[in-house]
Amino acid sequence: MSKENMMYEGKAKQVYATNDPAYVIVSYKDDATAFNGEKKGQIADKGIFNNSITTVLFEILEEKGIPTHFIEKLNERDQLCKAVTIVPLEVIVRNVIAGSMAKRLGIEEGTEIPNTIFEICYKNDEYGDPLINDDHAVAMRLTTYDELKKIYAITRDINKIMMDFFDKQGIRLIDFKLEFGKTADGTLLLADEISPDTCRFWDKNTNQKLDKDRFRRDLGDVQEAYKEILSRVEKG
Amino acid sequence: MSKENMMYEGKAKQVYATNDPAYVIVSYKDDATAFNGEKKGQIADKGIFNNSITTVLFEILEEKGIPTHFIEKLNERDQLCKAVTIVPLEVIVRNVIAGSMAKRLGIEEGTEIPNTIFEICYKNDEYGDPLINDDHAVAMRLTTYDELKKIYAITRDINKIMMDFFDKQGIRLIDFKLEFGKTADGTLLLADEISPDTCRFWDKNTNQKLDKDRFRRDLGDVQEAYKEILSRVEKG
Ligand SMILES: Nc1ncnc2c1ncn2[C@@H]1O[C@H](COP(=O)(O)OP(=O)(O)O)[C@@H](O)[C@H]1O
Ligand SMILES: Nc1ncnc2c1ncn2[C@@H]1O[C@H](COP(=O)(O)OP(=O)(O)O)[C@@H](O)[C@H]1O
Ligand SMILES: [Mg+2]
Ligand SMILES: [Mg+2]
Repeated sequence: MSKENMMYEGKAKQVYATNDPAYVIVSYKDDATAFNGEKKGQIADKGIFNNSITTVLFEILEEKGIPTHFIEKLNERDQLCKAVTIVPLEVIVRNVIAGSMAKRLGIEEGTEIPNTIFEICYKNDEYGDPLINDDHAVAMRLTTYDELKKIYAITRDINKIMMDFFDKQGIRLIDFKLEFGKTADGTLLLADEISPDTCRFWDKNTNQKLDKDRFRRDLGDVQEAYKEILSRVEKG
Repeated sequence: MSKENMMYEGKAKQVYATNDPAYVIVSYKDDATAFNGEKKGQIADKGIFNNSITTVLFEILEEKGIPTHFIEKLNERDQLCKAVTIVPLEVIVRNVIAGSMAKRLGIEEGTEIPNTIFEICYKNDEYGDPLINDDHAVAMRLTTYDELKKIYAITRDINKIMMDFFDKQGIRLIDFKLEFGKTADGTLLLADEISPDTCRFWDKNTNQKLDKDRFRRDLGDVQEAYKEILSRVEKG
């Protein structure tokens, strides 16, 4: 499969066409952004780490029966994936309160909760990826109730697989964000990435943050956190 | 029933104890606030209008089988109601896009939608009554999934009754906010008020706003709008 013209560039990745319209090459960059693009920087080799971490995780998910866009890792920064039209939603799972939810609702970070929280945000940088609910999403014609039902079911399964996997690696999976897409024939697939850019990972023993919060909050040892996550997922 | 000490004072009403702990007297003020208390003012006789409007609407709802806190109108500003513990949620129904949803998501006000939108916000002035979803509400122990199911079912019925009633009065019911409460024995009741403070009413022929948006947006003829709504609901 040959890498052709760049179709679009996001904040963390580039998507390239291939000679087959059913496939794209996703290329991971070192660019890091936070707070809806307000804070910008680079994390050395982040693209390399995230490509590898996503590869391991998507392979595990595929093996456990989750339909994903992932085909294979091509090189340090590139992945071959099925081309999809992204459902313009960020699907967020929260196992422990942190980040925007803690801030928005005045809840202390790290608060344990009696039920898993599933959230959807309207994927739209101009409006800051605002939280919405199912009725909003359907009214805005971003998706349908039926598709949402499927998305939540797959997301719940992914959370179980990921919680179990990361627990064995000594990591608390605090929260994470997923994106889904549809192929030309309408098949719903997990797309995008799963990495320290899109998850909160806390060390099980020390509660040390091993994710993009180190960049967001200037905690130092940013690259080390990505490296540590890669080393733990590779052991899994 | 005698009016005893004031139990609490909100932005638009005061709640008084009575000699029977199962009942309270809700007293309607002329105070008007907007944008989470940032804008403050008075609308002459608003309390009188809203007491009367809420009385008509709660009587209609009771008649149609909706369980409410309303017992009877006592005088110009006072209502006798069942005492409840308020479920700290604002339950919002949107039949047409307007207000905060239009602004937050970049949708033009007045946009028609294929499905009714039900929203819940965490009733908390300090955090600006933020939008939440069912999982958040349960995780925060504000309610239970079972109670939410009941709240949505009653709210759906209220919307049908209100849409039908206001349509006959030449008014488009754009959106509205409800509050629910529980009596000492756990009975779920519609509480609070339904008035131009808590609904968006647009004239069916002219689309003229007949609600608190006249105050929020300095459109003039504020009192006239409340008066007009009272006169139309009294005809119903
Ligand atoms: N398989 C795929 N096919 C097409 N687009 C994809 C696929 N997987 C992810 N994308 C999209 O690639 C874009 C680039 O990724 P990223 O840099 O993370 O963007 P963003 O700035 O939106 O976070 C995103 O819009 C993402 O939804
Ligand atoms: N039947 C009731 N029993 C007890 N409290 C009630 C009842 N109905 C409404 N309330 C509460 O009375 C308070 C005063 O009303 P309001 O002035 O509208 O307050 P707010 O500033 O919260 O909008 C609100 O907290 C409302 O939830
Ligand atoms: Mg992204
Ligand atoms: Mg109120």
